[in-house]
Amino acid sequence: MNTISFAKGHGTENDFLIIDATVDPTEEQVRALCERRAGLGADGVLRVVRADADGQWFMDYRNADGSIAEMCGNGVRVFAHWLRSRGLVDSDEFTVGTRAGDRRVTVRECSDTDAVVTVEMGAAEVTGLSTARLGDLTVAGLGVDMGNPHVACVLPGLTPESLQAMALSDPEFDREFFPSGVNVEILTPLTDGAVHMRVHERGVGETRSCGTGTVAAARAALADAGWTDGEVTVHIPGGTVQVTIDGDRSTLTGPSRIIATGEVTL
Amino acid sequence: MNTISFAKGHGTENDFLIIDATVDPTEEQVRALCERRAGLGADGVLRVVRADADGQWFMDYRNADGSIAEMCGNGVRVFAHWLRSRGLVDSDEFTVGTRAGDRRVTVRECSDTDAVVTVEMGAAEVTGLSTARLGDLTVAGLGVDMGNPHVACVLPGLTPESLQAMALSDPEFDREFFPSGVNVEILTPLTDGAVHMRVHERGVGETRSCGTGTVAAARAALADAGWTDGEVTVHIPGGTVQVTIDGDRSTLTGPSRIIATGEVTL
Repeated sequence: MNTISFAKGHGTENDFLIIDATVDPTEEQVRALCERRAGLGADGVLRVVRADADGQWFMDYRNADGSIAEMCGNGVRVFAHWLRSRGLVDSDEFTVGTRAGDRRVTVRECSDTDAVVTVEMGAAEVTGLSTARLGDLTVAGLGVDMGNPHVACVLPGLTPESLQAMALSDPEFDREFFPSGVNVEILTPLTDGAVHMRVHERGVGETRSCGTGTVAAARAALADAGWTDGEVTVHIPGGTVQVTIDGDRSTLTGPSRIIATGEVTL
Repeated sequence: MNTISFAKGHGTENDFLIIDATVDPTEEQVRALCERRAGLGADGVLRVVRADADGQWFMDYRNADGSIAEMCGNGVRVFAHWLRSRGLVDSDEFTVGTRAGDRRVTVRECSDTDAVVTVEMGAAEVTGLSTARLGDLTVAGLGVDMGNPHVACVLPGLTPESLQAMALSDPEFDREFFPSGVNVEILTPLTDGAVHMRVHERGVGETRSCGTGTVAAARAALADAGWTDGEVTVHIPGGTVQVTIDGDRSTLTGPSRIIATGEVTL
């Protein structure tokens, strides 16, 4: 049994434990850390690893089940916030290495506890029209590949209130179109540059926030309005983010909050 | 915004944040601390208050919703563990003040991280036979008043495996018998001094552990076997505890684990 330093933070209520590279937890230790009641509790662990002598940092992301993940849009904001607020980088613009490649980040506001961070999210590639079924309701959605698969469904006439009242427990989708499963976003049409969205994550269930899902939703909202590029404010249960889509580039800007630091027994 | 010291611990996976008396959080701050993703996350907050000049301590317990609670059998173990392991008391036997009265505790094993603690739980008063309905199944249960109401249902022939497979989402009960609602325990018959139990807590849903519920279950298991007094090992989803019943006295012995300490931003 040993004791390690940790911080806890969240990006739009997607929450993470931050640990440094002197610790390399086993899958079982990650699960124990992320366990909500017996452990500290989190959606994942961000291990802060120095990638090279030039001072670049690598986000070694672990899911709560102990498995390795490629990328997490909300996690990168918290990771960048940690680096910048604790003096591990000395500039507001830098690159974070991830298993899905390097991500350019810009820290726009920053204190020890709160930050606003923009992350380059790559291409939001449209893969075609598909459908999803929510109980008796069949809705049309836009397939969007963000490295992971999404079907983002804009419902005509949907209001924030009726969105909140919807049952989103077990959406059905086209298994030929999405053989590896799909993340399902349900959203209101674009109004004054903003949409309200809920998301059902593949293999997880409904969550408070999904970084790639907000970009897929922005892509679909713009397409529904007849545009390809633009800026969209996306309201999700866990908060609000801004997405820009510009050709094959996209960015996600949102908050990060670091709420606690301490020592935990592994 | 200010920063306060905290510890996180759990008793059979009923988890708590421990804070000292220099902080008196508002209901809103308690809710924020206990929020699983945006906060540290816990079932409740244990505020460590010195009760008098003789060195007695008072457990100021707050529920995760910010409300004040009278007592928590699992919380008292963690509270006593904290006092003893951090040198706030200098004996293994002492009294903890709660809103439900003084509770005698005995710390049987103790390190900074792990302890085994016995708590006097008072009388497990039988209030009569009643029933509960789980889907299509109606089962008989023993009404037990532990300061809070319980109906503890021993199911003939129930095995640990079939208990685990049961649906326990929304049990129905006799609303004339239990006008303020009731905690429902479902358990296997007493075998070699032990039972397996699941619990549906009033106003909460199924939980990993309920201190008073394990005592009510022990009372019912003994009654089902034709006894009034005795010692029962109770296996719950969050771990294992020992209950003794001796006339109008009962004790609950179980583990406490303190997993982390640190600073959190309120």
